[in-house]
Amino acid sequence: MYDRIKQSFEKQGIMKTLNAQLAEVEKGQVKITCEFSEALTQHNGFFHAGVITTIVDSACGYSALTTMPENANVLTVEFKVNFMKPANTDKLIAIGKVLQAGRTLTICEGYVYDSNEEKLIAKMTATMIAVQQ
Amino acid sequence: MYDRIKQSFEKQGIMKTLNAQLAEVEKGQVKITCEFSEALTQHNGFFHAGVITTIVDSACGYSALTTMPENANVLTVEFKVNFMKPANTDKLIAIGKVLQAGRTLTICEGYVYDSNEEKLIAKMTATMIAVQQ
Amino acid sequence: MYDRIKQSFEKQGIMKTLNAQLAEVEKGQVKITCEFSEALTQHNGFFHAGVITTIVDSACGYSALTTMPENANVLTVEFKVNFMKPANTDKLIAIGKVLQAGRTLTICEGYVYDSNEEKLIAKMTATMIAVQQ
Amino acid sequence: MYDRIKQSFEKQGIMKTLNAQLAEVEKGQVKITCEFSEALTQHNGFFHAGVITTIVDSACGYSALTTMPENANVLTVEFKVNFMKPANTDKLIAIGKVLQAGRTLTICEGYVYDSNEEKLIAKMTATMIAVQQ
Repeated sequence: MYDRIKQSFEKQGIMKTLNAQLAEVEKGQVKITCEFSEALTQHNGFFHAGVITTIVDSACGYSALTTMPENANVLTVEFKVNFMKPANTDKLIAIGKVLQAGRTLTICEGYVYDSNEEKLIAKMTATMIAVQQ
Repeated sequence: MYDRIKQSFEKQGIMKTLNAQLAEVEKGQVKITCEFSEALTQHNGFFHAGVITTIVDSACGYSALTTMPENANVLTVEFKVNFMKPANTDKLIAIGKVLQAGRTLTICEGYVYDSNEEKLIAKMTATMIAVQQ
Repeated sequence: MYDRIKQSFEKQGIMKTLNAQLAEVEKGQVKITCEFSEALTQHNGFFHAGVITTIVDSACGYSALTTMPENANVLTVEFKVNFMKPANTDKLIAIGKVLQAGRTLTICEGYVYDSNEEKLIAKMTATMIAVQQ
Repeated sequence: MYDRIKQSFEKQGIMKTLNAQLAEVEKGQVKITCEFSEALTQHNGFFHAGVITTIVDSACGYSALTTMPENANVLTVEFKVNFMKPANTDKLIAIGKVLQAGRTLTICEGYVYDSNEEKLIAKMTATMIAVQQ
């Protein structure tokens, strides 16, 4: 399962650009991390909300993909993110989890923590769709 | 007003990283564009949902900022994005518009179009908060 | 088209309970109204956010249904609502509009106004799914 | 704490209309239940998404209120709900929980279960605001 997700992860050019790492893959759950860099900031010098969203969207999408058939492709239908704390940390840890896997739609929850995995920086709820490749 | 937004925009490291451009600023509306590059892709080779979100979040945040006092800073409380079409275009055009400006909270709507400003690729609704700098 | 929507509307027991009215039906747009009553209030005596949501969810769902095949049934996948003003009006006017109609998923936007259709009280974005009856 | 929430709950006319019950109140968590009736249905004869939303919105709002000062009032800024299963049960059990309590904004998560508290029917994320009464 890791290889399948890793292969797709490496096709995501933005993951290289953000220097994001695929940290863990298990059925229904994927972790992606991203170290701080000035190249990823908003106007106060913290991680931009869009960067936080990018890695947790991929984490949610791949968590959904682990529950889909081998030949499926996954796309994001929609998501909502609440930003709870300023992202002033040296590393983001994003965890995507499947809340409900369906044949067509899969609902995921995403959590973004600081580098100690203690402070919840953002929370996502996402709807993913399985499409034929 | 343009100078104030431009100054903040240039502090957002991620905007340089994405090679995003501040295209237009008027009271209650801001346009940001972003040209395609393989550095910004998801696994099918189109713009990643997170990149789309990043530029429209900044467009919404800055549209809110144009309605706030000079000394205010703006932060994203939350947003929701629906992705309507695959982002296979050579340029994204993101427009953020204030739907309701309040003293504390401002509600914005964001639209992301293809390079012809014809195809609606994504739609955001965002809640922004004014904070003292 | 009106008859098809009206028939379904009359099966929604909650619409009678709220004394909601199916006001207008056109392709891709449906209007539902609801007069004020103390039976519909929250703790400050205004319309409860849930009542606002109920009628605009039905308006969005039926707007989606107008774009679907005759034998389709519509269900709500998810929605997000921003509440912009206290709902202290003697009638709610909810308008659901199709933003993008798809074979499986349809994205709608819902607007809830006061009785003069001037003050925007709430804004919904909803994802609807077509299912076989 | 129960008395404070109960007093506000009884002012919500819609709770009587839905025949909803305030079941449990603890700091940061509130449970509201609602028995099935044909007066609460959508077109397939199940609980309407709006009814589900109404009770979980109140559960979330009251969970937030338990963390606010005595003289505070709570209003819903926005929420998002995913509907995961048809609500064909004889009783809805809605649980609102505070995810993060702030001075101005409080983020809550809401869960709606079937009568056995086993099947997750819907999931809400809500932003609540404390206002002076």
